[in-house]
Amino acid sequence: MNEFELIAKLTKSLPANENVVTGAGDDCAVLDLGAKDKLILFKTDAVVEGIHFTRETPPEKIGRKALARCLSDIAAMAGTPVAALVTIALPENFDAEFVGGIYDGLNALAEKNYVAVVGGETTTNPRHILISIALVGTVPRGKQILRSGAKAGDAIFVTGELGGSLAEKHLEFEPRLAEARWLAEHSSIHSMIDLSDGLAGDLPHILNASGVGAELLKSSIPISREAKLAARKNSSAKPAFAAAMTDGEDFELLFTVAAKSAVKLLDAWKKQFPKLKLSCIGKIVAGDGILIRDKGGSHKLNAHGYVHFT
Amino acid sequence: MNEFELIAKLTKSLPANENVVTGAGDDCAVLDLGAKDKLILFKTDAVVEGIHFTRETPPEKIGRKALARCLSDIAAMAGTPVAALVTIALPENFDAEFVGGIYDGLNALAEKNYVAVVGGETTTNPRHILISIALVGTVPRGKQILRSGAKAGDAIFVTGELGGSLAEKHLEFEPRLAEARWLAEHSSIHSMIDLSDGLAGDLPHILNASGVGAELLKSSIPISREAKLAARKNSSAKPAFAAAMTDGEDFELLFTVAAKSAVKLLDAWKKQFPKLKLSCIGKIVAGDGILIRDKGGSHKLNAHGYVHFT
Repeated sequence: MNEFELIAKLTKSLPANENVVTGAGDDCAVLDLGAKDKLILFKTDAVVEGIHFTRETPPEKIGRKALARCLSDIAAMAGTPVAALVTIALPENFDAEFVGGIYDGLNALAEKNYVAVVGGETTTNPRHILISIALVGTVPRGKQILRSGAKAGDAIFVTGELGGSLAEKHLEFEPRLAEARWLAEHSSIHSMIDLSDGLAGDLPHILNASGVGAELLKSSIPISREAKLAARKNSSAKPAFAAAMTDGEDFELLFTVAAKSAVKLLDAWKKQFPKLKLSCIGKIVAGDGILIRDKGGSHKLNAHGYVHFT
Repeated sequence: MNEFELIAKLTKSLPANENVVTGAGDDCAVLDLGAKDKLILFKTDAVVEGIHFTRETPPEKIGRKALARCLSDIAAMAGTPVAALVTIALPENFDAEFVGGIYDGLNALAEKNYVAVVGGETTTNPRHILISIALVGTVPRGKQILRSGAKAGDAIFVTGELGGSLAEKHLEFEPRLAEARWLAEHSSIHSMIDLSDGLAGDLPHILNASGVGAELLKSSIPISREAKLAARKNSSAKPAFAAAMTDGEDFELLFTVAAKSAVKLLDAWKKQFPKLKLSCIGKIVAGDGILIRDKGGSHKLNAHGYVHFT
């Protein structure tokens, strides 16, 4: 049983109550806690030494990344983050300066995004450092964007460029909070997710939640310079396109809108965010799964995650 | 630097914003997210294998305890828990049945307390299991009870009996949610905390936050049967009174009220909660620190936590 299967099993019948608007299975949980014009977003995310960072990663960047990942999930709902709690589990002979560095990086990103850090705890974890962030945010009532709203015919968009995040971006990415809120205000976004497991890993979450499939145009997938460089430097590395599809930790926004809004949205985006690429990479279709179209025709992407392309 | 010193250093200047009513340093953070008559409580708490449970602890009891500890913090603010997120970090070769057991115990306690479980994640942690719970709750606006409200002259109360929790209670305690809400509604509680580090460890949190001291009557401290039994069985064990002061994980409520309300409160409590002991154990005084009075006079308790008594 892998992580996804385990989670699917565990979250099949969770306790609920009337405060729950959207429970497990989206980027954030959505709660109604009685504010007239707002709903509450609720999210946790953990980073672990050896997986998301190493002991050699500067502590400021570890703390920054821990919070940035959670902020990216708030962005994926078109929300605004409000307050965070920080849990740091670390070996007993911890270096207080190292922990201080984690907080410095985290606090700087929190301040930049007007997020309050309202507490947390340190606890003991043998050998490895683990940081878990809990975050609450808000979204205008009824304006939260879920994974489940994609419709056949929708145009599929992605911000930025994909792949090669491990070279640097995974420690320095900017959560797309302002961009997501602008999208929710200026267009009718049907579905959205942030890319943490790669396009090939995360697009299926939208498709499965919405009961639809997707057709992507291979030449339209925006491939990062880092992914291209890595493929060029090392012939045994992933081809650049495969890297863009599967590398993970892009933390860009993937979303769908009605096809008729697509051109207008692209034009308005260019004026609003001239420095950040927005690419239309394909369309939502009836059915399921992902088809990739290139000059040679269409072929089916038959597994999410680390799939090899030719 | 110990855990308390590190936290004090890290939380000295945290990012804040106008949504924060009470930040780091109380049982929960208190946020104003725009609900007219409610404030939001926000808390995380982690349990770690080898500290809070062992690999031999039945998984249902591990999951139950992880959530119960967090519920106890909501109780300490006189709040109502609403929704939880569950982070389980575990070795790669995890036993899915074990993880299912953790969720079973957690879900059962959540349902009993009408708490929704709205998601979470599993992640990898080499060698040890760590469970972190994030919880949001609500409290009627202005009715949250903080650690900082104790006043000289207040009577000090504690629910239940103290010490010996490790024998069984730490896995089976009932968070005092209903009792705390009743207290907030039926009396003017000045300050409150839940006992996780023992009376000698947690009373100082109230005293320091309120800028006062305390005088306890030794004979009035309610000592649990388990603490007495352990001391009787093993002459090298902690004396029962020391166990009641320092064992930790009691998860009872410790609170203060104006002295003039004390007798009325005790009478009303006995009618409302006939099965749960409520003890007046002393009074708040000007100054600082804790004085213990017994037949031999008064002596100062000069360190929090694991202090030896004669």
